[in-house]
Amino acid sequence: MNYCSNCGSSQLVWKQPAGEHLLRQVCEQCQMIHYQNPKIIAGCLPVWENKILLCKRAIEPRYGLWTVPAGFMENGESIEEAAMRETWEEANAKVSLKSLYMMYSIMRVDQLYVLFLGQLENLDFHAGEESLEVQLFSEEEIPWKELAFHIVEKTVRNYFNDFKNHTFPTHIGKL
Amino acid sequence: MNYCSNCGSSQLVWKQPAGEHLLRQVCEQCQMIHYQNPKIIAGCLPVWENKILLCKRAIEPRYGLWTVPAGFMENGESIEEAAMRETWEEANAKVSLKSLYMMYSIMRVDQLYVLFLGQLENLDFHAGEESLEVQLFSEEEIPWKELAFHIVEKTVRNYFNDFKNHTFPTHIGKL
Repeated sequence: MNYCSNCGSSQLVWKQPAGEHLLRQVCEQCQMIHYQNPKIIAGCLPVWENKILLCKRAIEPRYGLWTVPAGFMENGESIEEAAMRETWEEANAKVSLKSLYMMYSIMRVDQLYVLFLGQLENLDFHAGEESLEVQLFSEEEIPWKELAFHIVEKTVRNYFNDFKNHTFPTHIGKL
Repeated sequence: MNYCSNCGSSQLVWKQPAGEHLLRQVCEQCQMIHYQNPKIIAGCLPVWENKILLCKRAIEPRYGLWTVPAGFMENGESIEEAAMRETWEEANAKVSLKSLYMMYSIMRVDQLYVLFLGQLENLDFHAGEESLEVQLFSEEEIPWKELAFHIVEKTVRNYFNDFKNHTFPTHIGKL
């Protein structure tokens, strides 16, 4: 932030407002406090028999690497609607959400990653605008070296581990 | 937003950027797209035997009404750290988090409410700066007419219902 979005002044300073414990960007002209908070990444791990659906990214960052359908939750939608929307946009896949599967705080980028387990309703999926390819993978077929993010690798490992144990708890943690 | 936080221009318009499906506030001067996304409310329902801890709000909105310890998740912390911080700030209470208890999309205010069940470690709690009082309530003692938010009422009802059933699943939904 270079200018105050309230009054347009460039007199922004980092300081600790009265009664607060953290440094905030504050406008010295109009006194507006500009809060910055983590964003929510909503997504879905679509599954079919012993396979999971991954998308090959057609956008940066990590162009050409594989990920789960997920993206920023928008105003005006619920977290489940966001997860289904992302699955539709990136993979043109219809899922029914089964359970909350992961909630991870991704510290480096100030994101909360909220992922549902989704049962694919059919195999009529194909790459959306943000994907180069969409494909089902069994555990043996996972392109481990070509996964886009650490959290995706964690998700995939959790899933096949849980699949062997026939139980899919909610995984909560941070990265 | 009245001025572009990137270049200071007042030429902000709502439009649909190329490749996007939603209206965004865009600067006609520097082309910056200003995204707005839901915020995360992290909190805890502190419990002790057959009672829960509530805080009487010392701040607006809903000054003087009862709520659970909860507030905006901050950059640089995990969701669990945020829940424990809020519990400490508002009730000076130490809890050990037991499970994820509620994840609700609160549509009217574009918030995702993430609440953990927390076992109070001791009874050495007292009102923090944002609370007038902090008190343990059994089901019979709940001030139903003086709860601050609809989501608090939902939380309290869920809890005593689950308490009778001796099971505390994660409740997911929207309000």
